[in-house]
Amino acid sequence: MAVEQRGGLVGVLGGMGPAAGAYFAYRMVQLTSADCDQEHVPVLLRNDPRIPDRSAAKLRGGPSPLPAMLEGMRFLRASGAQCIAIPCNTAHIWYEELRSSVDVPVLHIVRSVIEDLQDRGVRGGRIGVMGTPATLRLGLYDKFLRDAAFEPIVPKDEEIERFCIEPIAAVKANRPGDALAGAVEGVRRLMDRGAVAVILGCTELPLAIPSSERAGLGICLTDSIDALALATLKACRRRVS
Amino acid sequence: MAVEQRGGLVGVLGGMGPAAGAYFAYRMVQLTSADCDQEHVPVLLRNDPRIPDRSAAKLRGGPSPLPAMLEGMRFLRASGAQCIAIPCNTAHIWYEELRSSVDVPVLHIVRSVIEDLQDRGVRGGRIGVMGTPATLRLGLYDKFLRDAAFEPIVPKDEEIERFCIEPIAAVKANRPGDALAGAVEGVRRLMDRGAVAVILGCTELPLAIPSSERAGLGICLTDSIDALALATLKACRRRVS
Repeated sequence: MAVEQRGGLVGVLGGMGPAAGAYFAYRMVQLTSADCDQEHVPVLLRNDPRIPDRSAAKLRGGPSPLPAMLEGMRFLRASGAQCIAIPCNTAHIWYEELRSSVDVPVLHIVRSVIEDLQDRGVRGGRIGVMGTPATLRLGLYDKFLRDAAFEPIVPKDEEIERFCIEPIAAVKANRPGDALAGAVEGVRRLMDRGAVAVILGCTELPLAIPSSERAGLGICLTDSIDALALATLKACRRRVS
Repeated sequence: MAVEQRGGLVGVLGGMGPAAGAYFAYRMVQLTSADCDQEHVPVLLRNDPRIPDRSAAKLRGGPSPLPAMLEGMRFLRASGAQCIAIPCNTAHIWYEELRSSVDVPVLHIVRSVIEDLQDRGVRGGRIGVMGTPATLRLGLYDKFLRDAAFEPIVPKDEEIERFCIEPIAAVKANRPGDALAGAVEGVRRLMDRGAVAVILGCTELPLAIPSSERAGLGICLTDSIDALALATLKACRRRVS
């Protein structure tokens, strides 16, 4: 791990969804090696849930979230952010526009997840991806996984509603208990098709399958909230605990 | 509960400590009644752990946290906050200076805790207060509790180190598991002295005694993070779930 060094302010474009944004900020703290308040990383979290729905914009002609996301990026930069993290996978469909709107590094959640897979010793094979309909249908993870010598597989069309959309919606509505069974069944179906690891590739999904439920599944699950938090801490050159 | 109504941006002066600040933002989301992202409350969390230690300033001549806190208040207001919450009990020693630095309402964590006690049906009697040495020695809670017809009691001088300072420091250093036993023993000692409820009057203490550990204690515990989050949601006129 990188040597500890006083980093600058981390900007977080959150609210997509709001539980994921706040939980990301919490995991940033929990994953930092620090002995007192003053050794932790300064974070500015703009947790604005009013940003229009990302999947609806891409798949159903809903209003674009891009103007609100760009406003958030500019706000974070103007407020002193030295790097920016966006704890929402689907938002990364617009990554190039977001990244080029500011003059500081913007972490990429998909790259963070692939680094996390590699850090866990997964070196190839089929990787299951769960996420929003837009993430899956637009293949957000496909090129990145193939470039890293992985073979992406996603839930079948008829499985997306029950195993991805419904659990994600339950977390957004503060009913995580209603999200667990469907999300777990989604993981199992991908395992049955030969996945050696499954990516929780929507930031609601780690909240649907909390850590305490993961060990029993018998598969490597990569949590896109934690992967992004770890990558952000590395970018700040912080020791990770 | 108040009728739902589109509220403005909530500013959060966090970082004192950083886990408490981020967890407060997370609890704001979890305690909101909402069906989708867009129904949640927009929050701007300035989670700046560099603010000097509050107890050290009041009791040991350390640098004052007030300039950094005032800078944070002005930043939140300039960024559009329509009300501000400060998830740190000890910071409320400076409440008047903080409140008068902005032209929007600033929630008071001690008032929120007392409302929470009353909402839970506690109507009088001895109330134990746990907190930082500054909160306890300066009697932050005393006048508010007496005005509401409660009798405050606090850990004995020789108990503060083991049952308050050490658990709080363990949470700040990301070792919450090391915080539980001492904090629980602190609660038990106050119960032995006749407390009918105990206030977790430092925002690290709810993280030291997580919800899952509270029911077994057989006493009403008021969590200053949740009490402030509930009061903030009421101030935004949001339905609370």
